Amino acid sequence: MTKENENDFIVTPWEVHGKVDYNKLMERFGTEPIDEALLERIKKHTGELHYMLRRGTFFTHRDMNFILNELERGNKFHLYTGRGPSEDIHIGHLVPWVFTKWLQDKFDVKFIFQLTDDEKFLFEEKLSKEDTYSFAIENACDVIALGFDPKNTEIIIDTDNAQTFYNIALPIAKKITYSTVKASFGFDNSINIGSVFYTSIQAVPAVLESVRQGKNVPCLIPHAIDQDPHFRLARDVLPRLGYYKPASIQCSFLPALGGPEGKMSASDPTQTVYVTDDPKTVEKKINKYAFSGGQVSVAEHRKKGGDPAVDVSYQWLKILLEEDDKKLKTLEEDYRNGDLLTGELKAILIDKLNVFLENHREKREKARDRLDEFLIKD
Amino acid sequence: MTKENENDFIVTPWEVHGKVDYNKLMERFGTEPIDEALLERIKKHTGELHYMLRRGTFFTHRDMNFILNELERGNKFHLYTGRGPSEDIHIGHLVPWVFTKWLQDKFDVKFIFQLTDDEKFLFEEKLSKEDTYSFAIENACDVIALGFDPKNTEIIIDTDNAQTFYNIALPIAKKITYSTVKASFGFDNSINIGSVFYTSIQAVPAVLESVRQGKNVPCLIPHAIDQDPHFRLARDVLPRLGYYKPASIQCSFLPALGGPEGKMSASDPTQTVYVTDDPKTVEKKINKYAFSGGQVSVAEHRKKGGDPAVDVSYQWLKILLEEDDKKLKTLEEDYRNGDLLTGELKAILIDKLNVFLENHREKREKARDRLDEFLIKD
Repeated sequence: MTKENENDFIVTPWEVHGKVDYNKLMERFGTEPIDEALLERIKKHTGELHYMLRRGTFFTHRDMNFILNELERGNKFHLYTGRGPSEDIHIGHLVPWVFTKWLQDKFDVKFIFQLTDDEKFLFEEKLSKEDTYSFAIENACDVIALGFDPKNTEIIIDTDNAQTFYNIALPIAKKITYSTVKASFGFDNSINIGSVFYTSIQAVPAVLESVRQGKNVPCLIPHAIDQDPHFRLARDVLPRLGYYKPASIQCSFLPALGGPEGKMSASDPTQTVYVTDDPKTVEKKINKYAFSGGQVSVAEHRKKGGDPAVDVSYQWLKILLEEDDKKLKTLEEDYRNGDLLTGELKAILIDKLNVFLENHREKREKARDRLDEFLIKD
Repeated sequence: MTKENENDFIVTPWEVHGKVDYNKLMERFGTEPIDEALLERIKKHTGELHYMLRRGTFFTHRDMNFILNELERGNKFHLYTGRGPSEDIHIGHLVPWVFTKWLQDKFDVKFIFQLTDDEKFLFEEKLSKEDTYSFAIENACDVIALGFDPKNTEIIIDTDNAQTFYNIALPIAKKITYSTVKASFGFDNSINIGSVFYTSIQAVPAVLESVRQGKNVPCLIPHAIDQDPHFRLARDVLPRLGYYKPASIQCSFLPALGGPEGKMSASDPTQTVYVTDDPKTVEKKINKYAFSGGQVSVAEHRKKGGDPAVDVSYQWLKILLEEDDKKLKTLEEDYRNGDLLTGELKAILIDKLNVFLENHREKREKARDRLDEFLIKD
């Protein structure tokens, strides 16, 4: 932490460090807060607000009003999000996808999910192309398991679609200088040339529908805020090629088990719960590692109460697992006033999480036979 | 010319300046001269030596002995060369292709010709993808017109083969840093990120046969020496991926009409003859612009004679148009001793060139209907 303010926390697509101040981050990145007026406007279309909107998990955006303006004049948007495939999906990954599924249902729109196996291969020294491709297939099963509509969903593995993607990426790449990516992503000159080029591939799904339909189709990208630099760059360059700027709606991170600093990493098993973790593992991880907002002794906790704002179990329930506002409110109050102990709160999370994961795993095994309904190839 | 020695001439894939000293260039690039022993070794296989070998137009190489060693133990090489498509092919472009055709005939080997429309699009601000693609089709006709065997020849337009090429390029790109391309090609940070990535695409045809056959197939690249930096980079990185280093055999440039400084540029019509130039245009260009090695007056010329080493008409005959060594020798002697005037030498060139071009154009029009025999697509 060399400079104050600037480096008290760091958020890039490849690195999150420190306790993220999301208000400061909005300012740094130049995104807009999701305010009451916008929530009301969304609600007019959806009838209700998803709990991730009600609770501020999705808290910031770019150009949501443009998306709704176009929608209201008959020009429907499509959704796009994606992932750099990894061996195991953890529950933090599911947050934006669960929300995207809701957007697809409510707006009845096309959804493109990009699995960037090329990116992962280029940025991870030790991974082979075969590794990242097999991760992509596994991760596709997780996406399908969430219940997306196959008639309205395309899952794109980059290396299966290079003919389309490379050709659309070329004019984008021609408009982006090395200086720009160096500054946007903090590269130094030892970066490999595939990684330098890569951001132009990540921009492609934002214009794929426009290319296919031969007219400008608005694109809305729900994503965790660390991916913003990719899309900021896309917003810069795409209008110079005659496309709309892609809009975005962005969420905060599900905190790691160790507490509110940093982002859950797929590579540290003590800090996260994978969708493949069995009930015993989940129980052990939560009990052993989940950061507690409670007091040092039961007596002290009964007297002073706990702090749900830093309690990881409470946060996981709030962000992903307890959809019912009333139940969540009761948990929050009981924990705050000391009626609910950390151990009890952890037990509630463990139950909820194991039910959620059992259900997810069942669906993801079924998804394996349905890959052809979703995957597209050149 | 800021520094002596280093900058008295400049040769890069995009720029040739000054009077090229080919001996110095070999030293700078680190290539080997083609010596008598190597010529003899080639002749053992081919029975005769092409006039471009006899006359030193192809004068330098990398690993030709490796190619012949492998050949002699039963591991046949394949040929690879290519071109950044341009609106008009000029006769300088034909030099390495004519030689490659001879190699294909003599060794009965597969030939891959790469048309790098992506490169041209990325490096030329004003050209659209549609422009460079249509140039590629036109240039393909010129290649086919030279008589390559369709059973042993594949013409690859990069943007038609991105699925294959991008996937093979990714591991290559992962091994090349921005620092390396910056140094190899003299880029500054305002270079676009597509151009940064591009060299990994140019390396693909060198390993395409190895990928297809699942074993190491040696690759020989005949090319003009300015392209050496691309292949030097490929030679550096491909062995780290388990492939052989591609070998090369390299020629000097056909001099521009204005004289021996620089390389013929496709963009300056006063310095070159396009394959599409009609007989009148050819006559006018040669008479008006072809640099003469003769004296200022006929009387002086008869007395002192001319210098074939700098006379462009003589050089074009030597390098491309007069295959007969005896006839060439007579021209050289007659010119040197003053019996042959510059105007007469020009007339001989004009005749030869127009016959050559008429024949080429006839074949290139027929080639238009044969594109499917040669072009491959993902």
